[in-house]
Amino acid sequence: MAMTSTTGTTDVATDETGSLISASKVEGTTVYNRQGENLGHVYDLMIDKRSGQVAYAVMSFGGFLGIGESHHPLPWKMLDYDTRMGGYVVDLDKDRLEGAPAYAPDARPDWRDRDYTKRIDTYYGVAPYSGWV
Amino acid sequence: MAMTSTTGTTDVATDETGSLISASKVEGTTVYNRQGENLGHVYDLMIDKRSGQVAYAVMSFGGFLGIGESHHPLPWKMLDYDTRMGGYVVDLDKDRLEGAPAYAPDARPDWRDRDYTKRIDTYYGVAPYSGWV
Repeated sequence: MAMTSTTGTTDVATDETGSLISASKVEGTTVYNRQGENLGHVYDLMIDKRSGQVAYAVMSFGGFLGIGESHHPLPWKMLDYDTRMGGYVVDLDKDRLEGAPAYAPDARPDWRDRDYTKRIDTYYGVAPYSGWV
Repeated sequence: MAMTSTTGTTDVATDETGSLISASKVEGTTVYNRQGENLGHVYDLMIDKRSGQVAYAVMSFGGFLGIGESHHPLPWKMLDYDTRMGGYVVDLDKDRLEGAPAYAPDARPDWRDRDYTKRIDTYYGVAPYSGWV
């Protein structure tokens, strides 16, 4: 995960000084695409419980005030934090996100299923998460 | 981070199926010592924003209903998840925790300061966090 800008101060910056950011500040942070469109926000993080590696950011997408939204897991390495925007930037358009692996807010994907996580990685064209220990 | 038990089902287990656990489920999870004493709960996680590696779990310790509590960062690798306990287990007693690097809930340590993080690692006798990128 690379910083795309190192200037500017935002609420997020408060807790992501240096190289560390708090999970509570990541959650709720806006996700933009490269065109600056607001795609949604980070709802949660999926962490490898043994290694402590963040594998996926779960993005809340679509809907209004929580109604009609869906949860889209994105491989963590796809997200770049942009201090100027005060949010994460991903190289994605809305159409691509609409067709991506997703689930309803009250649903739970089977995160034990490596085929499921591979499907996410394959959809976004990133190398399969290799941090499993 | 090692699982010390693989049986049992808890609320936490719901979202930590297989090797992945959601940050929102980690937050609020009870931390016990090896004697089974309730030491506090995980308040937040500090994540290396480039690598996505969880470096520290911030534990809320002491106080009552949020009054008088303090925040104690623990190196992530010190925490073992115990499904039987439904919480994390650390090899620490309360006295050791009381003397540990800590801050008030409304304070913010300078997480940019590598001397600060080294002080935490040294206090607990773990190798300095080496995931910086």
